[in-house]
Amino acid sequence: MNALGRHILAEIYGCDENILNDKEQIEKIMVDAAIIAGAEVREIAFHKFSPQGVSGVVIISESHLTIHTWPELGYAAVDVFTCGSKVNPWDACNYITEKFHASHITATEVKRGLIENNIKVVNY
Amino acid sequence: MNALGRHILAEIYGCDENILNDKEQIEKIMVDAAIIAGAEVREIAFHKFSPQGVSGVVIISESHLTIHTWPELGYAAVDVFTCGSKVNPWDACNYITEKFHASHITATEVKRGLIENNIKVVNY
Repeated sequence: MNALGRHILAEIYGCDENILNDKEQIEKIMVDAAIIAGAEVREIAFHKFSPQGVSGVVIISESHLTIHTWPELGYAAVDVFTCGSKVNPWDACNYITEKFHASHITATEVKRGLIENNIKVVNY
Repeated sequence: MNALGRHILAEIYGCDENILNDKEQIEKIMVDAAIIAGAEVREIAFHKFSPQGVSGVVIISESHLTIHTWPELGYAAVDVFTCGSKVNPWDACNYITEKFHASHITATEVKRGLIENNIKVVNY
């Protein structure tokens, strides 16, 4: 079986709470993370919640990055889902963790789209 | 430990390939799925790829729904990530599966944001 994509689910703890509440800064970090991983950015959408917290997504040609932050807990839920062999989702994940000044992270990689070997995948 | 969120990773196979290549139809199905699950829609972003495939996201107050489609394989990778007790992510997931006329689905629920019990969560 071949997997079409790699999906990292990252639990990022002990982050700088000011960064986690700053929509513009988070948007820049997420877009830069996509680019650093070698992805092509297609669409972005970010939202600032009241009284706190930011949610956002970067759609890339190779799938997506998403984030939800709880500044009051110093916690961010980050997903990096990539397809193809040109992009390494861990590069994006590590960059985000560094920029958030996180104290610790737990992350899991899940294979997405398990397809029989004899089906030709034309997109990648 | 309390979890802040529930995240369903759904592999949806045997879908109608015409629907999987129709950005407008997918956008409507994803937004309707969010609403049916009881979520509040905040932002949407969808992208149609050439020659085929659609990627998109619906940011909700309770986190997000995302989709990536491979019409040529009849496959869609769908994520439904929700926080709080008012929204059931499986309602959205089941609705999407039905609308895509899927033949089979494998889905996993992952708990996101495991926080110590004695921390008060103020957002939800």
